[in-house]
Amino acid sequence: MNPRKILVAQGGGPTAVINQSLVGVVLEARRHRGVESVYGARHGVRGIVNEDLVDLTQETSHNLELVAATPAAALGSTRDKPDLAYCQEIFKVLQAHEIGQFYYIGGNDSSDTVRIVSEQAQAAHYALRCIHIPKTIDNDLVGSDHTPGFPSAARFVAQSFAGANLDNAALPGVYVGVVMGRHAGFLTAASALGKKFADDGPHLIYLPERTFDVDQFLLDVKATYARFGRCVIAVSEGIHDASGTPILSKLAGDLERDAHGNVQLSGTGALADLLCEEIKNKLGIKRVRGDTFGYLQRSFLGCVSDVDQREAREVGEKAVQWAMWGDRDGSVAIKRAGYYAADYELLPLSAVAGKTRTMEDEFIAPSGTDVTDAFRLYLRPLLGSGMPDAFRLRPNAVAKVLKR
Amino acid sequence: MNPRKILVAQGGGPTAVINQSLVGVVLEARRHRGVESVYGARHGVRGIVNEDLVDLTQETSHNLELVAATPAAALGSTRDKPDLAYCQEIFKVLQAHEIGQFYYIGGNDSSDTVRIVSEQAQAAHYALRCIHIPKTIDNDLVGSDHTPGFPSAARFVAQSFAGANLDNAALPGVYVGVVMGRHAGFLTAASALGKKFADDGPHLIYLPERTFDVDQFLLDVKATYARFGRCVIAVSEGIHDASGTPILSKLAGDLERDAHGNVQLSGTGALADLLCEEIKNKLGIKRVRGDTFGYLQRSFLGCVSDVDQREAREVGEKAVQWAMWGDRDGSVAIKRAGYYAADYELLPLSAVAGKTRTMEDEFIAPSGTDVTDAFRLYLRPLLGSGMPDAFRLRPNAVAKVLKR
Repeated sequence: MNPRKILVAQGGGPTAVINQSLVGVVLEARRHRGVESVYGARHGVRGIVNEDLVDLTQETSHNLELVAATPAAALGSTRDKPDLAYCQEIFKVLQAHEIGQFYYIGGNDSSDTVRIVSEQAQAAHYALRCIHIPKTIDNDLVGSDHTPGFPSAARFVAQSFAGANLDNAALPGVYVGVVMGRHAGFLTAASALGKKFADDGPHLIYLPERTFDVDQFLLDVKATYARFGRCVIAVSEGIHDASGTPILSKLAGDLERDAHGNVQLSGTGALADLLCEEIKNKLGIKRVRGDTFGYLQRSFLGCVSDVDQREAREVGEKAVQWAMWGDRDGSVAIKRAGYYAADYELLPLSAVAGKTRTMEDEFIAPSGTDVTDAFRLYLRPLLGSGMPDAFRLRPNAVAKVLKR
Repeated sequence: MNPRKILVAQGGGPTAVINQSLVGVVLEARRHRGVESVYGARHGVRGIVNEDLVDLTQETSHNLELVAATPAAALGSTRDKPDLAYCQEIFKVLQAHEIGQFYYIGGNDSSDTVRIVSEQAQAAHYALRCIHIPKTIDNDLVGSDHTPGFPSAARFVAQSFAGANLDNAALPGVYVGVVMGRHAGFLTAASALGKKFADDGPHLIYLPERTFDVDQFLLDVKATYARFGRCVIAVSEGIHDASGTPILSKLAGDLERDAHGNVQLSGTGALADLLCEEIKNKLGIKRVRGDTFGYLQRSFLGCVSDVDQREAREVGEKAVQWAMWGDRDGSVAIKRAGYYAADYELLPLSAVAGKTRTMEDEFIAPSGTDVTDAFRLYLRPLLGSGMPDAFRLRPNAVAKVLKR
């Protein structure tokens, strides 16, 4: 099957490498005989229903390569989560423009959109190949070893905590860093990869996969502070109590929800501030500082994993190959091969769409506040080459003269 | 004068390159004939009065080079601001250990400590050379073109805003990024160096050198949002109203103060959250997100200016040369030569100590919400080589079929 026109779009939160996948699709599609036009939709599915399309066939290969290395979604993204009626609108536009292949780069909400559009086309007996290309810093797609975008964000988090640990060692106190991740703690857990020496932070890691108890948290912090004279803590924005209520909700009553019904956990420093107040007030520690890593962890220009870049490019290329030469729709997944190589597979859309992966138990230490060596082995090769390293002076104490 | 023993210490907030200055002192001092021991004080002046000293003569040159490339203060730092009695204690320890040269790497508080200790030594007719080595991400030392540590932090801020702008363009809304800088807006102004295309953010920059008026701020945001459909804003943590009251104080009643009597502006996301609430409530814009860059901007492992590294190393080396071959105490300053080269000078301690530089008027646009080209020309060479660049797709609109 060789369609004359194909369409690609980007959905959900931007990442450091989502443009690699876009460019992988465009360059691979342009080399296929019979493809006349490669269209891009501006701002995801919203751009499709509004017929806000651009012709990527007119873009130079050189500029496409430069865009590939640029973070965030070059076509623009959207938070829209299409229902059936919305997907029917999408399909209507694809038909009108005689689109033969539809590629949507996004997370599990986006994969569900692809699934519905695929079903629409089949019901209408319209020849449309629909491929979901994975992307999310949360690493929460089922069926994949990991998702493009996660390794680069994980690298940012690891480098941030490596630096925050050095800062905290220089001016001791308690440091709380809040990391993105509503249901999956992978990105918060990546903070552990910033540790080098045995007494380095993060000393405590709180994941949404475990219940967060404020009293136990304070006991943990107190014990760590007593042991090291300081304490660096990584906290997922999604931590919740036993009933599933976000810890942040206990602070702020009126929380914003997006179109998916999700509470807004990002874009506010409230959780870090709340936890710092608890530590100051209940433990009497004076120097307590909190940071919320916010949008920097997914958008910072200049922190990227080269492994992530390569894989994001390849899932785009593989998507086109499966669409051109295969006979079914699907979602591209990354498989781990050896220590470490990546391979790819096309999963049924129904196996991925709308499902959420969380951290496996084998990755979380029994204490619930640390990761396992299995997780370190899992994540380290994904962070890529050239990870900066931290060094310290060796202690050679000078004998006291006055206070002997 | 060739003292047998010298002492070096680090004070104030850590930076990405303060260890370069430390290592510059140690390596330069170790090659001078007659120098037997190079001591370091743990955690600045506090380590001196506690006789908590380490012998850096026993450290390998190789490890010193690795430590130099590591951010934060390898000897540990302190927020103590010594008064006369404290400085007398310092002097007592220096005498007891027969220290002939005292180097203190820090900001304007640290330079004042060096000044007082220098006066103590002169009054006691004790041969002590006292040199202040500049360091501060705030760039607020008088007499220097700029201070070591600022260029690397500025680079982090520029790269952060470059990425945040891309993210904001992909998912339009209002983004507020709060940057460190109590009195001097240099670091916040560095956000402007993240702009590439004419419509890139930051669209608005608020500096502590100008009075912040909430109503005018809302008018600015409204006009920018109307023009671009989005708005990226850089805000200094030190913004204040006409009476000098920090805008943050209007939110939080009970603010922590440090030993210098300074209000705690860092380590809390409150200012960003407050401004976001104002925009949501008063302008009715739905997607408003705030980040507080916090400690990442001074400690992130893996974002450094090579120009800053070189200069931080050299101010350490020059300090030792002036102490060995010169005849007076002083503060090392960087002078700008050409487009761009650096030169160094030893200023009298009294010319620097306790004084604060703020942004010159020529660097601030008449609007008060942007920088001038003079500032861009000033800052760009300091950011160093290998600055990441952002690229975008060129618009080639596809003709509408359904909605013609």
